Amino acid sequence: MNVTVWNEFYEEKKFPSVSSVYPDGLHVVLEQALAEHLGPEADTRVALQEEPEHGLSEAVLEATDVLLWWSHLKDDEVGDEVVERVKRRVLDGMGLLILHSAIGSKIAKALLGTSGQMTGWRHGDSELLWTILPGHEIVSGVPNPVVIPAGEMYGEPLDIPAPDELVFISSYQGGEVLRSGCGFHRGRGRIFFFAPGHEESPIYFQPEIRRILANAVRWAAPPAQPQPRSARQGEYPKNWWVQA
Amino acid sequence: MNVTVWNEFYEEKKFPSVSSVYPDGLHVVLEQALAEHLGPEADTRVALQEEPEHGLSEAVLEATDVLLWWSHLKDDEVGDEVVERVKRRVLDGMGLLILHSAIGSKIAKALLGTSGQMTGWRHGDSELLWTILPGHEIVSGVPNPVVIPAGEMYGEPLDIPAPDELVFISSYQGGEVLRSGCGFHRGRGRIFFFAPGHEESPIYFQPEIRRILANAVRWAAPPAQPQPRSARQGEYPKNWWVQA
Amino acid sequence: MNVTVWNEFYEEKKFPSVSSVYPDGLHVVLEQALAEHLGPEADTRVALQEEPEHGLSEAVLEATDVLLWWSHLKDDEVGDEVVERVKRRVLDGMGLLILHSAIGSKIAKALLGTSGQMTGWRHGDSELLWTILPGHEIVSGVPNPVVIPAGEMYGEPLDIPAPDELVFISSYQGGEVLRSGCGFHRGRGRIFFFAPGHEESPIYFQPEIRRILANAVRWAAPPAQPQPRSARQGEYPKNWWVQA
Amino acid sequence: MNVTVWNEFYEEKKFPSVSSVYPDGLHVVLEQALAEHLGPEADTRVALQEEPEHGLSEAVLEATDVLLWWSHLKDDEVGDEVVERVKRRVLDGMGLLILHSAIGSKIAKALLGTSGQMTGWRHGDSELLWTILPGHEIVSGVPNPVVIPAGEMYGEPLDIPAPDELVFISSYQGGEVLRSGCGFHRGRGRIFFFAPGHEESPIYFQPEIRRILANAVRWAAPPAQPQPRSARQGEYPKNWWVQA
Repeated sequence: MNVTVWNEFYEEKKFPSVSSVYPDGLHVVLEQALAEHLGPEADTRVALQEEPEHGLSEAVLEATDVLLWWSHLKDDEVGDEVVERVKRRVLDGMGLLILHSAIGSKIAKALLGTSGQMTGWRHGDSELLWTILPGHEIVSGVPNPVVIPAGEMYGEPLDIPAPDELVFISSYQGGEVLRSGCGFHRGRGRIFFFAPGHEESPIYFQPEIRRILANAVRWAAPPAQPQPRSARQGEYPKNWWVQA
Repeated sequence: MNVTVWNEFYEEKKFPSVSSVYPDGLHVVLEQALAEHLGPEADTRVALQEEPEHGLSEAVLEATDVLLWWSHLKDDEVGDEVVERVKRRVLDGMGLLILHSAIGSKIAKALLGTSGQMTGWRHGDSELLWTILPGHEIVSGVPNPVVIPAGEMYGEPLDIPAPDELVFISSYQGGEVLRSGCGFHRGRGRIFFFAPGHEESPIYFQPEIRRILANAVRWAAPPAQPQPRSARQGEYPKNWWVQA
Repeated sequence: MNVTVWNEFYEEKKFPSVSSVYPDGLHVVLEQALAEHLGPEADTRVALQEEPEHGLSEAVLEATDVLLWWSHLKDDEVGDEVVERVKRRVLDGMGLLILHSAIGSKIAKALLGTSGQMTGWRHGDSELLWTILPGHEIVSGVPNPVVIPAGEMYGEPLDIPAPDELVFISSYQGGEVLRSGCGFHRGRGRIFFFAPGHEESPIYFQPEIRRILANAVRWAAPPAQPQPRSARQGEYPKNWWVQA
Repeated sequence: MNVTVWNEFYEEKKFPSVSSVYPDGLHVVLEQALAEHLGPEADTRVALQEEPEHGLSEAVLEATDVLLWWSHLKDDEVGDEVVERVKRRVLDGMGLLILHSAIGSKIAKALLGTSGQMTGWRHGDSELLWTILPGHEIVSGVPNPVVIPAGEMYGEPLDIPAPDELVFISSYQGGEVLRSGCGFHRGRGRIFFFAPGHEESPIYFQPEIRRILANAVRWAAPPAQPQPRSARQGEYPKNWWVQA
């Protein structure tokens, strides 16, 4: 399984409040988390916004089974062709993890069709991540609830489609709630939005969170033998399958 | 529109902590709430567990468009034939509101197929009722969030099917969450589970809650001209619709 | 209720096979169908692609509760600002009916996030429209199945998200199937994709189809008192609702 | 993975039209189909209605990860305690495949809450099984459509809840359609209803059907480390997770 971890990689270089938590970038910690749980099962590489084509050439995407996406302040500088390319690849079968603030990213909005806008937000809240589907593979080996000492509150209504699989709901110190773990089936691909991941807190170092991310990568990966597309996408005669 | 409010009507006569809030029974206050918002739009009657056939004869159910159901400690004494009768009527098009602890009732378990068991419960918590579907008719005229000063916490995972329409999620003082407003389509009928309604607190006197209940009754009511059943439920020849 | 019927209005002027069925344009027949069933309940106007801003200024959209959209060969000439404007308005609460080939339109792709591509298509097939949700308001007064003598086959898989409400599934003369009546909740708005409507056949003259369209407009219309947006979309302090 | 194939095993002994197709019983062919595709991955056993406790003791169910269920004419003779036992086990995490006419069985009705009644049925129709979710693991290596030369038509509306994952829709020679491959999440378990399997046709000998059954068993199997239940199912104090 080939996994690509994509990161905006801006705040880690700009703000002490972030670099103190992720001195080498969020992507390095995400990569370590997957290596820890998936080991040889996954071959993981990194792609950064600063690279040519943001590190997401056709070739890279073609060779990627699951893409993790973390973006925030610089998302508006992501090129539209790259967004379109990633979208096409997801609809063609690539898995996508939309992490934290990336729910408001161009790629999330392009694939979900909604604004991704939440009803208010606030830094520093502790968060409780409650399991809704206790038999789901994404919660395999994960306690209920997961306690996140400090993160970021996003409030409902959050403008997303009703998820095909609602895995987690969070509550925050202020009493707000969020559908914080949402699985979507789109085209031949799968998308998992996972809300925890505020850049000023060591959330991606937390064992339960790392386990969830690894489980989500497995869930989002395409099946062994994806169904081939129909030979005929254009107008075709009656009973073509009998002739085929 | 004919509405029947069904109540176990036991705790109001047995426990001072309940009779002090609902001296004449929960059903009276529910009836007033609907009259307040629906007026002549709804003709509302009451049915009680203590009545013959629990007040739910074939004739009563046949004449009911939407049934509200509140039960708790005496639900195990509800007759199985009545449960089966109500289930058949819901699948045939009657709307059903499952109120508070009735999520664990025989009728809720029979219609949803799950246990209705929650992960722990606790009395007295304040609750925040958050809107998930802001364009839904059930939240028409309802603020976000609705604040309930004191009620009862039910924790997730709650064993219910994923709702067809997730309208509300609640958080409680202790940090727990719940899918507290859930719409289900079953057969030709609609079911709405609404969690608030702990009998020791004046929740059904609260204006926003009364509005939600009235909206839910409108949502659950059958359409003007329900589609007739197919003339033939048994084996039938090819192209019967052409002949019909 | 204010309804706007939007039409590309190109093929009716260009191809005899279409002008012979809809000499004055599809939009006129759609308008008549709604007037027939909704009467004074709806104030219906027409907007055409050839008009300035395609007839969809901010003012027109602001005054529209439900928009019907029929487009096909000229959809690629619809301006992106207008598409974005319609999308925003739907997420803000306007209902949208996506008719026939418009499932592949810019606006459908923008709101659903998928390609809208079907697996093959073919002209002239007879179609059977089967009801899946017999208690749904959109099938009120509609027989099962509806027989369409001649239309256009679209094959599955059709690249759309799983609908929030699957109302109809069609079969075609060649044996193909399609999720042909699909309700979606997006933001504060509702979207209904209805597949029948091939321009070379008098499908919008068919009584059952006209009834379905009118029912769908009622279903897609916003509620009487949509929930106001939270006063605070930005960062806000804990327990703001208590202060509010 | 431990799989149990349960069969009513009545028609194969009673009717030549069935014994000529499945002389040793449907269960033997189902067992072979799984062995063929799952090999050592699954340890498969058989249980029959004629056995004590219908072959489904607490011990057998406890040791079963996925149960296949085929029943028809004798389903009304299945003991209620066994039905209740199977239901509890599914809600506790066991996968269940509901095969063909078993959609009308006691266990299907108990777990889904609906009647399982279809709108008419007819023997002998050819069937086309169309894929709706082309990226789903259940269609891995399966062509679209699958052609079934002869089987049994079931018509919509079929009284089941909207599936959590709609994988297949079938069309029949007569023009009817059916949601013929439906995934449901219930409690900690997964249920897959698969319509093909009429006992008078060699459908379970068909390579594509055998592949689908094996894929469905994998899909329905519980995850490696199911989430433990909360230690406390009763009333518990605030912030118990902090203390735990």
